[in-house]
Amino acid sequence: MGSVTDLERLARAQLSELADPGDPALGALLARCEPAELIRAVSAAGAPQASLPGGCAEVPGLDRAFGRWRRRLPGIATPGRLDGWQRSGLRLVCPGEPEWPTQLDDLGEARPVLLWLRGDCDLRFACLRSVSVVGSRAATGYGLEVALELAAELSERGYTVVSGGAYGIDTRAHQGALVSGGCTVAVLASGLGYCYPQGQHGLFEQIAGSGVLVSECPPDRPPTRPGFLIRNRLIAALSRGTVVVQAALRSGALNTARHARELCRPVMAVPGPVTTEQSAGCHELIMSYGAACVTAARDVIEHVSPPGTGGEGPRFGPSRRRDSLDPVMTAVLEAVPASGGRGAAEIAIRAGIEHDAAVSCLGRLAGEGFVQRGKHGWRAVRQPEQDQQ
Amino acid sequence: MGSVTDLERLARAQLSELADPGDPALGALLARCEPAELIRAVSAAGAPQASLPGGCAEVPGLDRAFGRWRRRLPGIATPGRLDGWQRSGLRLVCPGEPEWPTQLDDLGEARPVLLWLRGDCDLRFACLRSVSVVGSRAATGYGLEVALELAAELSERGYTVVSGGAYGIDTRAHQGALVSGGCTVAVLASGLGYCYPQGQHGLFEQIAGSGVLVSECPPDRPPTRPGFLIRNRLIAALSRGTVVVQAALRSGALNTARHARELCRPVMAVPGPVTTEQSAGCHELIMSYGAACVTAARDVIEHVSPPGTGGEGPRFGPSRRRDSLDPVMTAVLEAVPASGGRGAAEIAIRAGIEHDAAVSCLGRLAGEGFVQRGKHGWRAVRQPEQDQQ
Repeated sequence: MGSVTDLERLARAQLSELADPGDPALGALLARCEPAELIRAVSAAGAPQASLPGGCAEVPGLDRAFGRWRRRLPGIATPGRLDGWQRSGLRLVCPGEPEWPTQLDDLGEARPVLLWLRGDCDLRFACLRSVSVVGSRAATGYGLEVALELAAELSERGYTVVSGGAYGIDTRAHQGALVSGGCTVAVLASGLGYCYPQGQHGLFEQIAGSGVLVSECPPDRPPTRPGFLIRNRLIAALSRGTVVVQAALRSGALNTARHARELCRPVMAVPGPVTTEQSAGCHELIMSYGAACVTAARDVIEHVSPPGTGGEGPRFGPSRRRDSLDPVMTAVLEAVPASGGRGAAEIAIRAGIEHDAAVSCLGRLAGEGFVQRGKHGWRAVRQPEQDQQ
Repeated sequence: MGSVTDLERLARAQLSELADPGDPALGALLARCEPAELIRAVSAAGAPQASLPGGCAEVPGLDRAFGRWRRRLPGIATPGRLDGWQRSGLRLVCPGEPEWPTQLDDLGEARPVLLWLRGDCDLRFACLRSVSVVGSRAATGYGLEVALELAAELSERGYTVVSGGAYGIDTRAHQGALVSGGCTVAVLASGLGYCYPQGQHGLFEQIAGSGVLVSECPPDRPPTRPGFLIRNRLIAALSRGTVVVQAALRSGALNTARHARELCRPVMAVPGPVTTEQSAGCHELIMSYGAACVTAARDVIEHVSPPGTGGEGPRFGPSRRRDSLDPVMTAVLEAVPASGGRGAAEIAIRAGIEHDAAVSCLGRLAGEGFVQRGKHGWRAVRQPEQDQQ
């Protein structure tokens, strides 16, 4: 699995058990030492400074953090337990590995230690062209309708939908992507072996079938109340921009919007009736927070498209026309099947180019929404009808 | 009636019969010569240049304009007909007269030649602190509800509502002001003797009872289709800012918003469901036109308040506290009755100051929303409850 050693993978898995998500001391230490060094220091007796590299001593709250982590040491995962989780269909992905979404690195020290994934999609490629669609659990019929339509249209245009796992707007966003046959990413605040809320079991299975479930928690970790807010930074960081579909003034979705702004990603909000409280948070984002008002997928795409790739063009249509691709890219795209999947090696042979060049082309095609990587390899993304003109 | 001679008043009335509202040749000529000179030149035979001051020759379309105007000459009003209209309760107000709303001068050459008014309110003082509340005839229940509530709350906070005379949003805006006992201004595209639409007779009578009806057309002029768009510049110019409550993409209310922007007045729009076309114009204003998103009267007041007069303060409350007034202003305000009306002379005596000083104070008090001038003289505006704290 790439350049990350089994030792580092085990150490990161164990650190994710010792520390809660977003633990600032852990983030600061991992910027200064290796995961395995840190596990050794936690496992050793004595002052943390004694067994860590010099720069670690300056990390605030070091002693308290070690106190917390050492209390959890007895229960941490063995290599055998990790293997068991992976045999059950979970993937453990560490920074630096091929499926690691590099945009999470924008979180700096708040970057997760690792991610647990379950599902058919390759997370990194799915998130190259993605939008977070979030909002309240307590949504109105209007909000639910807009979430479904918006996610469905984004999905049809080749955008991956990213959201949480809650009822309400999150659920409808995933359903919209699923009905369009697109990829959807659910970032959960609990471990992936722990279905919360329980009633979402069916939805999560569907997401695993054609998208991906994501968590930074060990698979057996139940949800905690602060965990939801900490999870929101991942929703914001995994996508190119965040749309709040419907949110009251105290909704957690506004916290996701705040994370997106801190990451300099576009923050968008869908307006609604000013006579209901459920859209008041969206209006506040527009009025006082500089969020862009968006009414449909075309507006969202304008805000998340890099300049020159479609947002500035006609309001409907793919982000780039197939016939604008160069001959090599076109040859690679021709070699990608419309359904099922095909490996990069086979695609390289069919396109008549080197393997490395094919992988590079596939990455660029994924970034522009032409192809997607799934469990069975690469497949083409259905393009909107306008593309056929 | 101030510094305007009867000769000028008659000439302006006659010019308003010869030329259509917003006639650019008329505006350009009135910037270069007196109304009476112009009437003499139109009445004379021969080339217009022969009987006009030198600068007038450069006005584009001069000959064609004279051609149009001369064809209408036979029917124009005599002093007797003007007197008849005025005896029927209409007021003719010319630039420079006390009731002339000086902000109309911002229209430059598009300034109306005169205004015809009917109603209890003094137009100039009413418009010192006013907001245009406009939108589509074909409004939804949601739009109608918002228009009523917004206008009622603006009115309670001492703002005059300005709108057109159409069914839908315009009507509800006036009704909101009326139920709050406030002043409302209806700017009509037809003459004030011509009730259009016919079904608005009752509403227009109510507006005349506690507000004012305004038209730049002679009283017997029927409405024309282009007249509505030309009228919109007056709605925008009479108020400190324009709020579009609900408008589809092709609504005439967007034309009023354009006029407001050209006049550098705040343009605001109320969001609504993105699933109905009736709010699409409002969203377009917010997304592509730089209009401010507003959800309630407090947001509108923030945008139309001069810096330092309330918009920056707490989100609820009067624009300025009564106890922040200086002793002379307080004495004048104390002398203004809460109902009925009182003349400036009587108020000056009661406040113990000179007549001119009282008139000046009354103007400032009107500008800050404390008092209003009506048919029976000055009366105090009911202040929101917070003011009593």
